Amino acid sequence: MTLVGNMPRFFVDSVSGNTISIRGNDAYHIGRSLRMRIGDIITVCADRVEYRAKILSISDKEVVCDVLSAEKSENEPTVNVVLYQALPKSDKMDLIVQKAVELGVYKIVPVITARCVSRPAKSGYEKRVERYNKIALEAAKQSGRGYVPEVTNFISFEECLGELKECDESFMCYEKGGVSLSKTGIAPVSEGEEKTIGLFIGCEGGFESHEAESCSQAGVTVVSLGPRILRCETAPLAALSVIMSLTGNM
Amino acid sequence: MTLVGNMPRFFVDSVSGNTISIRGNDAYHIGRSLRMRIGDIITVCADRVEYRAKILSISDKEVVCDVLSAEKSENEPTVNVVLYQALPKSDKMDLIVQKAVELGVYKIVPVITARCVSRPAKSGYEKRVERYNKIALEAAKQSGRGYVPEVTNFISFEECLGELKECDESFMCYEKGGVSLSKTGIAPVSEGEEKTIGLFIGCEGGFESHEAESCSQAGVTVVSLGPRILRCETAPLAALSVIMSLTGNM
Repeated sequence: MTLVGNMPRFFVDSVSGNTISIRGNDAYHIGRSLRMRIGDIITVCADRVEYRAKILSISDKEVVCDVLSAEKSENEPTVNVVLYQALPKSDKMDLIVQKAVELGVYKIVPVITARCVSRPAKSGYEKRVERYNKIALEAAKQSGRGYVPEVTNFISFEECLGELKECDESFMCYEKGGVSLSKTGIAPVSEGEEKTIGLFIGCEGGFESHEAESCSQAGVTVVSLGPRILRCETAPLAALSVIMSLTGNM
Repeated sequence: MTLVGNMPRFFVDSVSGNTISIRGNDAYHIGRSLRMRIGDIITVCADRVEYRAKILSISDKEVVCDVLSAEKSENEPTVNVVLYQALPKSDKMDLIVQKAVELGVYKIVPVITARCVSRPAKSGYEKRVERYNKIALEAAKQSGRGYVPEVTNFISFEECLGELKECDESFMCYEKGGVSLSKTGIAPVSEGEEKTIGLFIGCEGGFESHEAESCSQAGVTVVSLGPRILRCETAPLAALSVIMSLTGNM
């Protein structure tokens, strides 16, 4: 929870009818930490719609609200950027998730590439995915998103390539060069165009040349982020910022 | 020290003639940690020039090298972006300094604005400035810069306004709105144009409206980074990325 425009913001999965039910930690938080009262107004978001809602009842387990008004969130970008991030070491992914959500990412997909030092077992990875999704939720609240981007379980390079092919446009940031993002023809995207851009970023060691070749052959545009070497947690934030600017979302 | 193009990179203040002297920690590091030997080749940078140099002698206190070739660094942006950053709380400035240097900043100037919670005494601040400059040096080595951006002591809002007026172009990122950076007419800057752009970013609480007005009256363009609320450490990185892209440096 955070204050955006001085009004607490919460996310629920869906809203049907004129009543909203907030459960779990958020319910407890509304009553205990925020000490809100019946009649107080909050903002509840569900799938890019922002509801202004009045609190009807409060318990530690559930807060029930009455919908006063509903509006499409104006804070969501007009483009769905999916970040395919080669898994970095230590807790760098935490920073990437938090910042990517602030910058308007649609979904984050960790990828295991040739140079990943971090190669967790899929079975034990659920806990990390859970943590990443908590970070995404907090960042969505803090930055005023109308949608909570999902962080998925990790996928292989081949699976990533398959998903990138499905995107309307896709880019791989390659440290050994490529075209500048601003020269790729990324253009402003209007509301309702439903465009998906895939963005593939390497881990600490970057990409193997055969990975860049595979991407290129699959129709993924290989781009450069300039001559300075960006750390693997800086590159996605720089690329996302530039894409949001080029598409008219920043 | 880090490996860029597989060659260790060091910075010295200046080079005169054909001999380079590396002193202090770097000298010790070359001989002991890196175990380099006489005849090994290193890259030494001084003020945007990269020297390829051969080691002539090694001691714990000094490494002397012979200049083999000198070239203007190709990694420096064509534009000098000075980041005026309202001082944030805790260690957020560390992250800002590291990432801003990677992204090509020219200089970083901490500023005390109306909403700064962190208001250190000028007398005790030298140690923090020293740490920031160490972070800048390490980031410059890691990212392959040809120049180490300076982090200065902090200045007042009024002093900042005075400096912004001296810039060729200047921007204040205001959370309550303004024009998009991509709509301000920032254009590609050619090599040798010597353009300076001032970028003013708020702390956690953003700016007071009278600060935005003062900036506007002083000719500083008030810009928005989009509808999502960026944390104070995310905003400078997003704005720098977009400016580097618009000026043809990313």
